Amino acid sequence: MKIQPDRLLADIEALAAIGDTGDGGNCRLALTDEDAGGRELVVGWMRALGLDVQVDRIGNVVATRAGAEGTGAGTDADGLAPVMTGSHIDTVGTGGRYDGTLGVLAGLEVVRALDDAGIRTRRPLEVAFFTDEEGSRFAPDMLGSLVYAGGMPLEDALDVVAIDGAVLGDELERIGWAGDGAVPGPAPHAYVELHIEQGPVLEEAGVTIGAVTGVQGISWQELTLTGQPNHAGTTPMRLRRDPAYVAAETIGFVRRLATDLGGHQVGTVGRVDLHPDLVNVVAARATLTVDLRNTDEAVLAHAERRLREHVAALASAEGCEVAGRRLARFEPVAFDPAVIDLVESTAERLGHSVMRLPSGAGHDAQMLARVCPTGMVFVPSRAGVSHNPAEFTEPEHLAAGAQVLAEVLTELAGAAE
Amino acid sequence: MKIQPDRLLADIEALAAIGDTGDGGNCRLALTDEDAGGRELVVGWMRALGLDVQVDRIGNVVATRAGAEGTGAGTDADGLAPVMTGSHIDTVGTGGRYDGTLGVLAGLEVVRALDDAGIRTRRPLEVAFFTDEEGSRFAPDMLGSLVYAGGMPLEDALDVVAIDGAVLGDELERIGWAGDGAVPGPAPHAYVELHIEQGPVLEEAGVTIGAVTGVQGISWQELTLTGQPNHAGTTPMRLRRDPAYVAAETIGFVRRLATDLGGHQVGTVGRVDLHPDLVNVVAARATLTVDLRNTDEAVLAHAERRLREHVAALASAEGCEVAGRRLARFEPVAFDPAVIDLVESTAERLGHSVMRLPSGAGHDAQMLARVCPTGMVFVPSRAGVSHNPAEFTEPEHLAAGAQVLAEVLTELAGAAE
Repeated sequence: MKIQPDRLLADIEALAAIGDTGDGGNCRLALTDEDAGGRELVVGWMRALGLDVQVDRIGNVVATRAGAEGTGAGTDADGLAPVMTGSHIDTVGTGGRYDGTLGVLAGLEVVRALDDAGIRTRRPLEVAFFTDEEGSRFAPDMLGSLVYAGGMPLEDALDVVAIDGAVLGDELERIGWAGDGAVPGPAPHAYVELHIEQGPVLEEAGVTIGAVTGVQGISWQELTLTGQPNHAGTTPMRLRRDPAYVAAETIGFVRRLATDLGGHQVGTVGRVDLHPDLVNVVAARATLTVDLRNTDEAVLAHAERRLREHVAALASAEGCEVAGRRLARFEPVAFDPAVIDLVESTAERLGHSVMRLPSGAGHDAQMLARVCPTGMVFVPSRAGVSHNPAEFTEPEHLAAGAQVLAEVLTELAGAAE
Repeated sequence: MKIQPDRLLADIEALAAIGDTGDGGNCRLALTDEDAGGRELVVGWMRALGLDVQVDRIGNVVATRAGAEGTGAGTDADGLAPVMTGSHIDTVGTGGRYDGTLGVLAGLEVVRALDDAGIRTRRPLEVAFFTDEEGSRFAPDMLGSLVYAGGMPLEDALDVVAIDGAVLGDELERIGWAGDGAVPGPAPHAYVELHIEQGPVLEEAGVTIGAVTGVQGISWQELTLTGQPNHAGTTPMRLRRDPAYVAAETIGFVRRLATDLGGHQVGTVGRVDLHPDLVNVVAARATLTVDLRNTDEAVLAHAERRLREHVAALASAEGCEVAGRRLARFEPVAFDPAVIDLVESTAERLGHSVMRLPSGAGHDAQMLARVCPTGMVFVPSRAGVSHNPAEFTEPEHLAAGAQVLAEVLTELAGAAE
């Protein structure tokens, strides 16, 4: 069984024409008309492949290729549980053409390749795309797969208000994608998702395939430091209570903390705002965010504690007050060891270089991991760039990832007699 | 001769009613209707005291009390050159009621005290207020005294465009304060200005009178650091080129540099802007300003050099580009040693605690220092606060400063036979 890269590339191209931003990028924010246009195109392809398409009440779409020993309808009477692949087709406001779409369209190419080879699997094979993975319009991100996995009640999800003021349930009705499939959805036998890395690790290592070990835990907090505004010319250094200085020392500490902890620990201060933000005024107030991530919950909690203690000491020494606010906190997700092994051994067997790595970004797979053995396949992102019109993955890497996905899914679904 | 504090306080109160912001503060931006209102009130008081009031072509107002051996009209035929005092009555947008006004109104109180005591000085005594000292509406600051001292051609000054789009010359005509006095103006025999400190040094030392030694040199620069925007989750620490980190290390360096150099060196980063300024994105660009000040030009230039070298090394180590832009640069101004001595000895003779200190802020006196022996008298600012409705100086300190000013001016003007 061989996937055909040209078909995959043509599908990516065709989907990218919907919500084309004219600069190589895409804007199909969740539940907009552009999202609806993308949905129609992809579901059309699903139906053309003879798949059984179901839409659930949060707008997730699951297309099923029946197996020899199951139909995928989700009850015991329907036989063996299906193997699922998929991702999302919504984008951020300034998205690229590979984030999410690759996983969905490669799933369809796997179906075509199985059809071409006349292969029937024991278990059904499902290709899904989940509503609002990006979270750019409706928070939180990965909302559709979270609801599918039972992590959020449907009613709460339908009530979510968009950044543009629209209500999720209303928008879902408006664009005609409120289905009648039950949520939470039936647990698959396994879930494997192909995705671009969105980071520089594979490219820097010169490796084609990533066997993803899990998703990093995320800690986002906002720190507000309050000092004493003063005249920059008339206030001696020893009398200053400068929150900008405390913020700066905090940024330096975050860098040293992440470097010292090593492993997969990362730490970022991406937002800093001073008030009043004038050249000749010692700031009254500094607000900054700290993004800490690790695959190990204990280390992540340790990093949070050390940061808290260090900022308290810095602020105290400078005579500043510090207030913290948690913006987000997710524990790390570990993928299934057997699925990780299978991705790795399959890539090796196909002659691709492969490495294990965690995902630094969130994915639908981490929600499915709550209900079934789950893994992911990564392919390199040029310069690590994503959520940007410049997002790019070499066609040969796209093809390699799709072929690994095809063989992993087929192995998990089992060959029919 | 004794100044009467109640009269001075009443004048400050009356002037503060014009452009009252309702929170204890004042807004009389240069050449607005509020500035015109303040001008009319003060010039009315000048005329009531029998002073000869002249308005020059940039709107500076000089009121002269004739001396026994001069009329102050500015030519050799008019006898001895006058001793001048003064300051400004324009304010910043959120100004207090003492900044500038104290120096002008104390000058008028000195005239009253001389009149009360029946004292006639040899030299004329002049009380001036200069146009647009604050520079909040029309840049640069100290514009009127700069033109008076010959540091800026009148034509250039009249063409200055305000932050609100108005042209200085038009506004001067509109409010009726474009006079016919020549600029540059005649050089006084000496200039002494009373002003609030606008810093915390006198209050912290528990000292009533500051004998100001000069004005710090000022170096303002803007640094733009450009790195590589990246995903905060997927980018390992070792692959980052983070301009926010370079900015933070620069802020820490500015603090250490100023502290290490000691003396009157100060250094401030009051403005920091990241782009795109998002919690989960390693910044693409950081812009920050550095304000360095010192009374010693050589040390100030040394500080600028060390900063430049350090930022270049930091940026290089992080793989960031650095671009600098000079926003302002003024060399330090040294006041006249004899005038400084006279302020100090006069304060001591009157029984006040006194200390020498430089001014960290700019004042009209630094422009007059270009053309005549100049000095300043400082009185304490509560908590060092200025350019703020909370600006406050104790009435007893206002009175002490005005009495010192009176005796210094009388000494410089000489007693008539």
